[in-house]
Amino acid sequence: MAKLSSLRVVIVGVGLIGGSLARALKDAGVTREIVGMSRGRESLDRALELGVIDRAELAPGAVGTADIVVFATPVRAMPDVMRAFAPHLGTQTVLTDVGSVKKFVCEAAERCLGQARTRFVASHPIAGTEHSGVEASFASLFENRSVILTPGEGADAGAVEVVESMWRLTGARVLRMSPERHDELLAATSHLPHMVAYALVNCLAKHPQSEELFRLAAGGFYDFTRIASSDPVMWRDIGLTNTGPLVQAMKTFRNELDAVIRALEAGDEARLQEEFANAKRARDQGLARKNGSQ
Amino acid sequence: MAKLSSLRVVIVGVGLIGGSLARALKDAGVTREIVGMSRGRESLDRALELGVIDRAELAPGAVGTADIVVFATPVRAMPDVMRAFAPHLGTQTVLTDVGSVKKFVCEAAERCLGQARTRFVASHPIAGTEHSGVEASFASLFENRSVILTPGEGADAGAVEVVESMWRLTGARVLRMSPERHDELLAATSHLPHMVAYALVNCLAKHPQSEELFRLAAGGFYDFTRIASSDPVMWRDIGLTNTGPLVQAMKTFRNELDAVIRALEAGDEARLQEEFANAKRARDQGLARKNGSQ
Repeated sequence: MAKLSSLRVVIVGVGLIGGSLARALKDAGVTREIVGMSRGRESLDRALELGVIDRAELAPGAVGTADIVVFATPVRAMPDVMRAFAPHLGTQTVLTDVGSVKKFVCEAAERCLGQARTRFVASHPIAGTEHSGVEASFASLFENRSVILTPGEGADAGAVEVVESMWRLTGARVLRMSPERHDELLAATSHLPHMVAYALVNCLAKHPQSEELFRLAAGGFYDFTRIASSDPVMWRDIGLTNTGPLVQAMKTFRNELDAVIRALEAGDEARLQEEFANAKRARDQGLARKNGSQ
Repeated sequence: MAKLSSLRVVIVGVGLIGGSLARALKDAGVTREIVGMSRGRESLDRALELGVIDRAELAPGAVGTADIVVFATPVRAMPDVMRAFAPHLGTQTVLTDVGSVKKFVCEAAERCLGQARTRFVASHPIAGTEHSGVEASFASLFENRSVILTPGEGADAGAVEVVESMWRLTGARVLRMSPERHDELLAATSHLPHMVAYALVNCLAKHPQSEELFRLAAGGFYDFTRIASSDPVMWRDIGLTNTGPLVQAMKTFRNELDAVIRALEAGDEARLQEEFANAKRARDQGLARKNGSQ
């Protein structure tokens, strides 16, 4: 692994994920300077106040040569951001991102980063909370979490090493796979559940007795729909850039739901009990294995 | 409110809810004896060991005259249980239940409880965890939770007072409504989310890369699907006894989901963002109001 020290790191988009990465790298003592970039001053000022970044800039040209640039904006903003950065990158600068969709981002990097494209190593930390913004960031967000790297075939081996080392410093474990595989797996485990949670809350919100429903809902309902409090713009972008795998996952889920509706309408006792018991077993086992592996 | 003291309480089905009610009433110091009943010895022995009940019996005839009988079995077992109890009830005994479905239970009481039917006051504590069994029970389960009573028109006013007083002793707040209204509201806030959680877990469980999916899934996924670890028999019974309102809620949810699929396929950016933002706002407001009212 690459030994990292005295880095100038540029974080573009200092929100929950970008801010937490900045904090974790500061805590690891490997940075000389963390520069925050954003379209607007407000979140940068807050990040400065909180000590999450050392310097705030609004334009890529003002940053100076960076060791690592991390794109941490909503995914659909990344092509423009990459194009804006391309002319200002040093010949050794390593680039990565934190987007929840990888094929779209990798294709954008190919198109928009020019010569630097071989030093771009896409990554996705599987970590987050339902809160957004730099105020919600914290240094231990990535501890014991998985980070998936999806380096292209032409990726510079040294750059891959730098990005992997950077994530290990945050306490994460690093996996590698293709962008396509990442997008299919995440559609099922993360993107689908978010769509389901948003749709479920909207069912109640559009109900004529909406207020009473939200008042009566037990704690379980609020746990269940916690992820429906996630950033709408981020999830709009994920939906629009991972449409194929996500719609596929949603249709599979709808078939599953339809089978339960049919079993209910038919009073099919054995089928219902089997479906519920299988789900309980699968979740309990999955959770036990996950906790065991940490 | 009725002043309760020195009660002999019979709990039929000493699981998470029955056991927690027993503990709460003991802590409140209003019981002379808590008798646990069940079809099998095993859970009763465990309840005795844990000190949740004072005496265990397998047959209603052996209990002696009770002040309060609480039916805490899965809902579809209740008609048989009520029929078995009917000949052994004292003329002052008050009866209630804790089932998640109220129309089915109220109709069963009308049919199966004989003379005692006017002293049956159906209730549903909106509380629980994903764990089941008496080992999972605890005295504070009902604190600050809602309990819904659905007394019939012919219900004895004194019996309603006793049941309401009993629940207040556990720290719950008590509401009243019709069984039909209860079943419609709970279909949306509780029964639907459980069906959705079970279906979502089954989507992953039936996936060819199931094991990898469960390993990769973030903590958010396990929070989201926590309720899919609930007791399958209990949820089978809820599905089979609240079929009409539940299937209606599931179809409304499916329409909501289909609208999101269509917006994704059409790349309808504005619609997606609006749906997600509305859901976030509704959930955040609902939660704030709920926390504010406690």
